[in-house]
Amino acid sequence: MSAQYNTVTQEVVDRLASIVGSKNIIWNDPEKMEAYAHDEVAEKEHAHMPDVVVKPSNAKEISEIIKLANEYMIPVTPRGAGSGLSGGAVPIYGGILLSIEKMNRILEIDKENLMAVVEPGVVTNEINNIIKDDGLFYAGYPMSLETCFIGGNVAENAGGGKAIKYGVTSRYVYGLEMVMPTGEIVEFGGKRVKDVTGYDIVHLMVGAEGTLGIYTKIILKLLPMPVATADLLVLFRDVDSAIEVVPKIMTNGRIIPTAIEFMDESSFKSSCQYLNETLPVAEAGAMLLIEIDGENKGIVEEEYETIGELCIKNGAIEVYVADNYTTTERIWKIRRNVAEAFKVISPHQSLEDIVVPISNIPKFVYGLSNIINKYNTPIPCYGHAGDGNLHATVVKNPEFTLEQWYEVLPKILTEMYTLTASLGGTISGEHGIGSKRKQYINLVMNENQINVMRKIKKALDPNYILNPGKIFDL
Amino acid sequence: MSAQYNTVTQEVVDRLASIVGSKNIIWNDPEKMEAYAHDEVAEKEHAHMPDVVVKPSNAKEISEIIKLANEYMIPVTPRGAGSGLSGGAVPIYGGILLSIEKMNRILEIDKENLMAVVEPGVVTNEINNIIKDDGLFYAGYPMSLETCFIGGNVAENAGGGKAIKYGVTSRYVYGLEMVMPTGEIVEFGGKRVKDVTGYDIVHLMVGAEGTLGIYTKIILKLLPMPVATADLLVLFRDVDSAIEVVPKIMTNGRIIPTAIEFMDESSFKSSCQYLNETLPVAEAGAMLLIEIDGENKGIVEEEYETIGELCIKNGAIEVYVADNYTTTERIWKIRRNVAEAFKVISPHQSLEDIVVPISNIPKFVYGLSNIINKYNTPIPCYGHAGDGNLHATVVKNPEFTLEQWYEVLPKILTEMYTLTASLGGTISGEHGIGSKRKQYINLVMNENQINVMRKIKKALDPNYILNPGKIFDL
Repeated sequence: MSAQYNTVTQEVVDRLASIVGSKNIIWNDPEKMEAYAHDEVAEKEHAHMPDVVVKPSNAKEISEIIKLANEYMIPVTPRGAGSGLSGGAVPIYGGILLSIEKMNRILEIDKENLMAVVEPGVVTNEINNIIKDDGLFYAGYPMSLETCFIGGNVAENAGGGKAIKYGVTSRYVYGLEMVMPTGEIVEFGGKRVKDVTGYDIVHLMVGAEGTLGIYTKIILKLLPMPVATADLLVLFRDVDSAIEVVPKIMTNGRIIPTAIEFMDESSFKSSCQYLNETLPVAEAGAMLLIEIDGENKGIVEEEYETIGELCIKNGAIEVYVADNYTTTERIWKIRRNVAEAFKVISPHQSLEDIVVPISNIPKFVYGLSNIINKYNTPIPCYGHAGDGNLHATVVKNPEFTLEQWYEVLPKILTEMYTLTASLGGTISGEHGIGSKRKQYINLVMNENQINVMRKIKKALDPNYILNPGKIFDL
Repeated sequence: MSAQYNTVTQEVVDRLASIVGSKNIIWNDPEKMEAYAHDEVAEKEHAHMPDVVVKPSNAKEISEIIKLANEYMIPVTPRGAGSGLSGGAVPIYGGILLSIEKMNRILEIDKENLMAVVEPGVVTNEINNIIKDDGLFYAGYPMSLETCFIGGNVAENAGGGKAIKYGVTSRYVYGLEMVMPTGEIVEFGGKRVKDVTGYDIVHLMVGAEGTLGIYTKIILKLLPMPVATADLLVLFRDVDSAIEVVPKIMTNGRIIPTAIEFMDESSFKSSCQYLNETLPVAEAGAMLLIEIDGENKGIVEEEYETIGELCIKNGAIEVYVADNYTTTERIWKIRRNVAEAFKVISPHQSLEDIVVPISNIPKFVYGLSNIINKYNTPIPCYGHAGDGNLHATVVKNPEFTLEQWYEVLPKILTEMYTLTASLGGTISGEHGIGSKRKQYINLVMNENQINVMRKIKKALDPNYILNPGKIFDL
């Protein structure tokens, strides 16, 4: 870190108050500020108090805050709903925490162009609520859609369960209005389905974790809503036969499901036990949860029959079809409760987000079992098999002391990430690097790769004002 | 332009020969070099001879060439097949023309991960030829797929006719190996469906028109090939009713076609006349060509019935369905021969590539008719209505002298681009800015926007060695 920051003084707070109004500032109030000191990463070591919290209402106010921060050399950390899983919104150098919670308007639903224009503080699910009666949906949403802000989704390039068919957040971001790290308000992209006028700055900014600018307006592409959906829960004897079927659904079956979720034995058995679920899973060693959607029921039925047959042909023990709300909820509950089930064992967990080429999932799961044995702690593995994105979750063995846990966790992560890298994978598929994974980035990137990012960061943020200490060290 | 370049001397050529071998150099041979002095832009003013042509075979050779160029301050212009339409591959400052024609190997077809790894000099269509028997296809290809190189497609972020459903080239580029403007060989991305490990450098590099690096390996996502397709040719009385139906296909019909091509009256009537096509088009004022695909014939039939009904409900005069090779070829021929038909009027044309929000197509076409009247020269307008991407083509009135033509053309382009900008559009949807449109970029971008690109260019290419004079002035 070459930048030397100053702390926030009364003078700075007075100037901030003149920009946003004193009621939009939290200062000298640790109790209220505490909510802005962490995200959904559980461990306290990833939290840090801001010096001051400001809540601007528009791009002009943000621009003035950023110019002030450059003048006084005070870091600025932008923050959405705080539902992130990488410490990306945590002000690890203190300074100004810039919350976009007041910028929560859906500015326009443009049905002719199938676009929405929103402010960054809109709760992602609100977009889908407002457009569903028009037969439209925003397909880029992540699992946390009921709490997260769209601005945070864009900053982290959030993924979610439907990426295999619909892609991730970045596919749907067509335009951005941003405040740059030097204070200019600049627009990139627009309501244009194609655009090659200059560099693709929009997609450099998506997933930049708030280090290259602050979004003040986001233009999102909408899609026609699929009419029918169905879910298949498929039990396999082992991981290999489950994963082998994944590309076959697409090549032999010529079907792209909306989701192919994978759970290893410890994941689904713990979750089933936790839920008192009576599915006969005793003989199963792996589970796939496959979701498909389409324009009508007939198409979807045809598709799930094709997929079911492919699974049976590939050694599936049992295929359950869910095509109504009750049965669908029942099977997705198993997937959603894996983390909760393991909290019974220990609240100390590290939720990971590795991604490997899908064909290497079995090798990853096999390598992980060696790590589990070596360190004698549970690491349930589940996630988005269709994307190769697995939320292996390191859970503290209840017999470990906290000291032992904090000593062993970095070793486990280093081994898990090294394994991932050796399989052509990387350390984050959808949660981001933030501060949580920064120390591990050199396990998957070399200096040349990191230097390209450093050069861009320095070119756009010469004072290193914006969200410092994230992704890579300067 | 702040950079001062040197010309290529015998000493430089000797050093280049020591890198690539003298048989891979063209020097002092204007006849052979002429082929590398232009792309598919017709006008001679957009051509420029290189000092020397080099044909490296691998990343290491390219790295050495780039380091040499930095040492001697000689510009390097990378070139694919030369099928571009913006002057992007033209060495407008002379120097080294770096042709990637020898790097033409398909390195891997990975059926498990649905990925292809290719060198940049592969002809795009070869990829689809090699994978079709496996039921796979590469969906990002442009119209020129039989001649263009995949490296050029990536550099220009090529579009094509299927973008409405399948997106453009960038959606399919998952990984790049590149030589940076300072000579390092760096890999970005990989065979990972999701990846948020640091900035999305892959998509900054796609569409950068060879100004930020030279691709040496490209990882492409493949898709299952659709089994059935059908095409509808729909005649409308006027532009408005044709364009109004476009979003309705997606919202009311809940169908995303693979292509919705638009032709204005002068386009399809000239093309039909040129082809001696007997379709009864006398009363029509606009034509849509709609292509759909799907997993089986039944689905496709259902879809084209839905679309046909929607068109009739919206005032279509006639709907023709083509679902076999002969009829499909017959209707696509009309679309493909618009440019040829107008070459009968004059070989002097400026093929444009504007893009507007789709709902603004009627306003654009209306504004264009004013420009046509004012300047008294034909500007047929046709293209990808589903994307708002229109190839309005300014054709020289045969009565104009060449002098008049070259005087009037920049005025027409300025008015057309200003109109486009006022409708939320931009000057290139898929062909790129290159040198051809550079002088017009400030009609659609302000200084703040261009400065973000300048800062990135300077950070990554401090000597302005790579493809200078393209997109924006320094």
